[in-house]
Amino acid sequence: MAWDFSTEPDFEAKLEWMRGFVRDEIMPLETLDLSPEQIGRATAPLKEEVKKQGLWAAHLDPDLGGQGFGQLKLGLMHEILGECYYAPQVFGNNAPDSGNAELIAIAGSDEQKAQWLRPLLDGEIRSAFSMTEPGAGADPTLIKTRAERVGDEYVINGHKWFTSNGSIADILIVMAVTNPDVHPYQGMSMIVVPRTAPGVNVLRNIPTMGEHDVPLDHSGHAEIIYSDVRVPVTNRLGDEGQAFVLAQKRLGPGRIHHVMRWIGQSNRAFRMLCERAVSRVAFGEPLARKQTIQNWIADSATEIHALRLMTLHAAWKMDQEGSSAARKEISMIKFWGGKVLHDAIDRAIQVHGSLGYTTDLPLEAMYRAARAGRIYDGPDEVHRMTVARQILKGYDAHDVPTEHVPTRREDAQRKFAWLLEQATANL
Amino acid sequence: MAWDFSTEPDFEAKLEWMRGFVRDEIMPLETLDLSPEQIGRATAPLKEEVKKQGLWAAHLDPDLGGQGFGQLKLGLMHEILGECYYAPQVFGNNAPDSGNAELIAIAGSDEQKAQWLRPLLDGEIRSAFSMTEPGAGADPTLIKTRAERVGDEYVINGHKWFTSNGSIADILIVMAVTNPDVHPYQGMSMIVVPRTAPGVNVLRNIPTMGEHDVPLDHSGHAEIIYSDVRVPVTNRLGDEGQAFVLAQKRLGPGRIHHVMRWIGQSNRAFRMLCERAVSRVAFGEPLARKQTIQNWIADSATEIHALRLMTLHAAWKMDQEGSSAARKEISMIKFWGGKVLHDAIDRAIQVHGSLGYTTDLPLEAMYRAARAGRIYDGPDEVHRMTVARQILKGYDAHDVPTEHVPTRREDAQRKFAWLLEQATANL
Amino acid sequence: MAWDFSTEPDFEAKLEWMRGFVRDEIMPLETLDLSPEQIGRATAPLKEEVKKQGLWAAHLDPDLGGQGFGQLKLGLMHEILGECYYAPQVFGNNAPDSGNAELIAIAGSDEQKAQWLRPLLDGEIRSAFSMTEPGAGADPTLIKTRAERVGDEYVINGHKWFTSNGSIADILIVMAVTNPDVHPYQGMSMIVVPRTAPGVNVLRNIPTMGEHDVPLDHSGHAEIIYSDVRVPVTNRLGDEGQAFVLAQKRLGPGRIHHVMRWIGQSNRAFRMLCERAVSRVAFGEPLARKQTIQNWIADSATEIHALRLMTLHAAWKMDQEGSSAARKEISMIKFWGGKVLHDAIDRAIQVHGSLGYTTDLPLEAMYRAARAGRIYDGPDEVHRMTVARQILKGYDAHDVPTEHVPTRREDAQRKFAWLLEQATANL
Amino acid sequence: MAWDFSTEPDFEAKLEWMRGFVRDEIMPLETLDLSPEQIGRATAPLKEEVKKQGLWAAHLDPDLGGQGFGQLKLGLMHEILGECYYAPQVFGNNAPDSGNAELIAIAGSDEQKAQWLRPLLDGEIRSAFSMTEPGAGADPTLIKTRAERVGDEYVINGHKWFTSNGSIADILIVMAVTNPDVHPYQGMSMIVVPRTAPGVNVLRNIPTMGEHDVPLDHSGHAEIIYSDVRVPVTNRLGDEGQAFVLAQKRLGPGRIHHVMRWIGQSNRAFRMLCERAVSRVAFGEPLARKQTIQNWIADSATEIHALRLMTLHAAWKMDQEGSSAARKEISMIKFWGGKVLHDAIDRAIQVHGSLGYTTDLPLEAMYRAARAGRIYDGPDEVHRMTVARQILKGYDAHDVPTEHVPTRREDAQRKFAWLLEQATANL
Repeated sequence: MAWDFSTEPDFEAKLEWMRGFVRDEIMPLETLDLSPEQIGRATAPLKEEVKKQGLWAAHLDPDLGGQGFGQLKLGLMHEILGECYYAPQVFGNNAPDSGNAELIAIAGSDEQKAQWLRPLLDGEIRSAFSMTEPGAGADPTLIKTRAERVGDEYVINGHKWFTSNGSIADILIVMAVTNPDVHPYQGMSMIVVPRTAPGVNVLRNIPTMGEHDVPLDHSGHAEIIYSDVRVPVTNRLGDEGQAFVLAQKRLGPGRIHHVMRWIGQSNRAFRMLCERAVSRVAFGEPLARKQTIQNWIADSATEIHALRLMTLHAAWKMDQEGSSAARKEISMIKFWGGKVLHDAIDRAIQVHGSLGYTTDLPLEAMYRAARAGRIYDGPDEVHRMTVARQILKGYDAHDVPTEHVPTRREDAQRKFAWLLEQATANL
Repeated sequence: MAWDFSTEPDFEAKLEWMRGFVRDEIMPLETLDLSPEQIGRATAPLKEEVKKQGLWAAHLDPDLGGQGFGQLKLGLMHEILGECYYAPQVFGNNAPDSGNAELIAIAGSDEQKAQWLRPLLDGEIRSAFSMTEPGAGADPTLIKTRAERVGDEYVINGHKWFTSNGSIADILIVMAVTNPDVHPYQGMSMIVVPRTAPGVNVLRNIPTMGEHDVPLDHSGHAEIIYSDVRVPVTNRLGDEGQAFVLAQKRLGPGRIHHVMRWIGQSNRAFRMLCERAVSRVAFGEPLARKQTIQNWIADSATEIHALRLMTLHAAWKMDQEGSSAARKEISMIKFWGGKVLHDAIDRAIQVHGSLGYTTDLPLEAMYRAARAGRIYDGPDEVHRMTVARQILKGYDAHDVPTEHVPTRREDAQRKFAWLLEQATANL
Repeated sequence: MAWDFSTEPDFEAKLEWMRGFVRDEIMPLETLDLSPEQIGRATAPLKEEVKKQGLWAAHLDPDLGGQGFGQLKLGLMHEILGECYYAPQVFGNNAPDSGNAELIAIAGSDEQKAQWLRPLLDGEIRSAFSMTEPGAGADPTLIKTRAERVGDEYVINGHKWFTSNGSIADILIVMAVTNPDVHPYQGMSMIVVPRTAPGVNVLRNIPTMGEHDVPLDHSGHAEIIYSDVRVPVTNRLGDEGQAFVLAQKRLGPGRIHHVMRWIGQSNRAFRMLCERAVSRVAFGEPLARKQTIQNWIADSATEIHALRLMTLHAAWKMDQEGSSAARKEISMIKFWGGKVLHDAIDRAIQVHGSLGYTTDLPLEAMYRAARAGRIYDGPDEVHRMTVARQILKGYDAHDVPTEHVPTRREDAQRKFAWLLEQATANL
Repeated sequence: MAWDFSTEPDFEAKLEWMRGFVRDEIMPLETLDLSPEQIGRATAPLKEEVKKQGLWAAHLDPDLGGQGFGQLKLGLMHEILGECYYAPQVFGNNAPDSGNAELIAIAGSDEQKAQWLRPLLDGEIRSAFSMTEPGAGADPTLIKTRAERVGDEYVINGHKWFTSNGSIADILIVMAVTNPDVHPYQGMSMIVVPRTAPGVNVLRNIPTMGEHDVPLDHSGHAEIIYSDVRVPVTNRLGDEGQAFVLAQKRLGPGRIHHVMRWIGQSNRAFRMLCERAVSRVAFGEPLARKQTIQNWIADSATEIHALRLMTLHAAWKMDQEGSSAARKEISMIKFWGGKVLHDAIDRAIQVHGSLGYTTDLPLEAMYRAARAGRIYDGPDEVHRMTVARQILKGYDAHDVPTEHVPTRREDAQRKFAWLLEQATANL
């Protein structure tokens, strides 16, 4: 037990296989314009290959058909999968289904698991997590969607948006106020709602930065009105009032998985930066010889390296001490990583000039996606606040040593009285 | 063998002892205004205590009286020692003597070791490394000091400055051109010169940022003219023309040790930032509740954490693969760490307001010292260039994959021809 | 004649009218999804209103039907027009037609003016400027398109892209090498090519960041292959080899007009930032009371204010001394303004959270457009280089005063010998 | 009356004279190590010269022996004076005496003016402004010094520090609580205290960043204990409780004068940056050819230019509408200018390498002085807050237009119903 920054050779071999597989077999799909159905057919044989390699659904426990690898190994894997849009689903890690499955695994009763977890893991149904509201983003205590208990049913009314996958999901996990008389941390519950239930009205897939038209039969960020939607009380996950605790469990690992994939995105942009630098000539020499470009390379290399070590450290700490012990570390990489990612892509675009701005390269889409990263799963501002609060817990105004020298000098003078006496004697 | 971010318990116990010892026994000395001689008397019993703990001169091999701990353990130690100005010398790591001793250990003959190494390690003599010249800073190929061989002697002429310790050293290790007809990398040698040799003229200790008057009997940054200084050829360390190779060996670890100590400086400033934040009230609430201050805490905490992990990683890599394999990693932390350090101190000053600007706190001195860190041992600009060059070695214009989609799309279309055929068939 | 930062009341009244007109009459068009033809019909009555106000085509000389206002007044107008996508065309300032008209006005013969300028000003034909090539972006000396003279014709071959308006233009002004044996600055010419000429092959409107499908009957950024396109020699604008000189004349004002409009974009984003700050509550108080948000407001307000003053100063200098005298000032605002613009929009997005990322607000489109601003009309890197070079012309290594104190101290001591004598006498 | 960025030729001639005078006659004094008394003798003939030129005490009204130039002309002058430490006093603008004289001119009775203002303007006495306390820095409502009225006297008790000039001043203007029962804004008064009054105890000149030993007979930043100091009630300036109003009047112009001088400091550092860049060679070419250095030149040139225009604009606004109307603009340049200044000096140091860190150049002292600028006269954080608050006054949550498109789209659709009808008809 001691500091070690190496990967054990057996696992490193698997990672090496993954790198080639993602680059040669999955990444080419990005350049084709395929329908969801075609994607399904194209990825099916690839998924089989992943299962054969024992790498399928690495985040799930073995009894759920996964590998139970722990976060550190996931970190090493995700930075490879993050390079390519289609890779996570080929490896059985597709958000938001993966997180929702974990949630049901943690909080679901046996009946609920039989009804929703198995089909979810088998890819027979799809799911969505319906939490964010137009009036409740960074601060979830402002959530207004109400689930009123009437007999054995909940009657749900509310307005959600950015419910990813919401337009195509079979089940929606809705976060709603079940008890408005207590603090929101104790008054909300999670309730499974079939998308086809009467009163579930999917308004649209919200058009976002550069993704203007996402049809309702594609996965998008759905805006949904719930009007007097009735589901049995048995559709509630966990106890009444437990939604916040469960949400933290779901979102904590979700955040670090995002950052793991950002490292992959950053690496890909960084390689493109270097490749362009050595191959493009302007003003009489390759761009690689311009000091500005060299500075970009040095800065991004260092920042990505720092983000990677911090992410693996946070993952390791989660494995050692659990998810909540690493809360500070996860918030650190969430807000800090967003900037690293943005800058890596931004520099890669700039070195490509107008080409970098076109869809001929993946960079423009990566740039738009990166902008969202500073908002979803908690905006930067909230994560910085979280880090500060965690740290300040360790400080108490009453313990503050007076660094002001007069006092400390007196302490020191008492301590070294013999020395000062000698010094004075010598005068 | 696998990723591990923990310290083995035995060594952690030693580190814990160090933290208390530095804080309680050494740091108080900073608040006294002592002469070099008084410092000597005050630190003597402390040094004995360090030796008793088996922590003396940790950077040296056991046969030189050290501990042979390797760079990673040094890293963990130095971030503690770096907190306090006097701590390194109490632990037998005092620059520049420590680096000079290593140099003689590596390159010296048995006679040279007997003459200079033993007395140096026993603290009987002091040493300086005389390399930088007014006209040769970042680019050492511009060094002009000439050592001309005349019979069995070198006749040395030149103008050096920033020779740390130079005014009080017994021996000066001078880097000089011995063969002007070859490239500087092959044409310089290192020669040991007694400071009392005729022709060695110590002009002054150069007054620097806020250290305006350093008397010649104190350690400072000496400016020295060498005029027809004669020393026997046997005073040369290593072969003729070997100075660059030796300098790299001396400076590589020196750089990372600086950064290790910067982490200590950063931690100290950071603690003061937090302590002030919880104890100072303005505009109706403790500063800790202001979001700007929280942002500073989050940013510095994250940056210091990142710097620490990168530094320990670089140290680990040096232990695993040797100093030159970690060249990129050392340059990364050297240029990037300088900014982390500056910002940590700068924010601590700002939160203290005018008090932070006074000498009542150590911050103003830390701030001035940090500014030098971006210049000495290679300015930031050179280290960024080094990082970029190391990385770009891995890229060759001829290998650049055409990311431009038209081509890649054709590849992908060939590969998934079956899928596209089906798609067309369905139309 | 003296420093004055005010606008004369008559013109201020016109500006005030413009602000209301843009806000109330033009801006609502942005929220509708109109075809080019509908836009034409919707803006026709608005254009009449502008002409009635004497504000039509303010950049053109009166003999061309414009107002001849000069750059400073244009600056004050453009910062209003820049707020809204459709405003420039309603005011007869639509790029690229406006710049192309200026070009023909400057360089065209009477015949050429009759043939192309009048119809262009009357809106009967449309034009494009075909300069950039996939291999020649920031460095136009790399342009490869060749116009070979054969009898009374030029035979043009080449590959252009980012020819804005190219797919719908009636005429394309092509920049091509007419003499490959001299330096590119002397070897290129500008030639008018009808888009319908045989050999003009418009491949596509290049899909760019979030604008993925721009049909060929819309204005976009066209990629065009010229294959043995033949046009009469009389289609050349100006003398042979004069293209660089003309391009500078066309691009100089074009750059500052971009920045003027950026100020409008920045102001619009800034207002949205403030409006959201006062109206959105999170964590118990309006966002306007969070210090982070206040910092964003202070920073953007200051940066936009600085950019505005620098832009108006550059415009004033162009009016006083001509376009090329203000080259440094134009480059300053071009590279520096790009960051101001980006940051203003970025902060506005962030304060809106996920709403800011949707197309429900104009911010996401503004964000994407701003990214292009750091590339088109010269990337930031080239403009920084231009600024530095203009400044360094004023410095000559031989004139450098030795700031090194020893020498200056000697000068000073000579000068104040009497004072130092007295000082010494007093000792 | 219209935008104008030029200086009237007569005044420009005076400025040109100033530039030469400061450079040739005053700046050399910096390189000598003179006592206050020697400075006095050296500057006496220079002051006569300034008076002859009609430039003495330009900030004062003519009836006080000044020029009444207004802030804009002061701005043009101060950016020249700011280049050199001794220049302001040679021009009769020496802080803090200049500000204190203004204060007595504004608030003093005829008796007070006779007693203190005349001697101050004639240089017969010196003054200090005693406001800041160890516990009251950025937030002056925390001031605790108490002036209790006993009969016709005030009895003053309190602890002040950073009272500039305090150890050598003849009179101290003390800000103290005269009525603890009302809000501090109404409860404090300004009282003139002779430094030699019983109970005035000047503890020390506070040692600051790199200025470790300032003897009590030099001007420094004094720490002063007031113990039962008794002065007649007639020593109060203005009405009781008016101290805040008066302080704002004194500090407003004081702040902008600081920034005006910072421009001079920035210009001086910038020239040294350029001079070094063209004259120093490393790695085979002058530093001026390195892109990193070019970037520094472009960035600092642009930032200083922006700061200058904003400062002159703020000064112009003060002249037009008075000091308090320009509060936002003054806060903008105060916080933003501090960074411009720091960066200009920091880059100049870095390009000089170790030389820049020595006292052989003025840069190290400029760097230390610049650090204080972000603290004195309100820390950056307070000025950013002030800017934001001034701006947010213009926004009211109830007025916020709903930028959210659904609503605005409806408005627009109503407005352009005719157009949309036609569009539908055409389908």
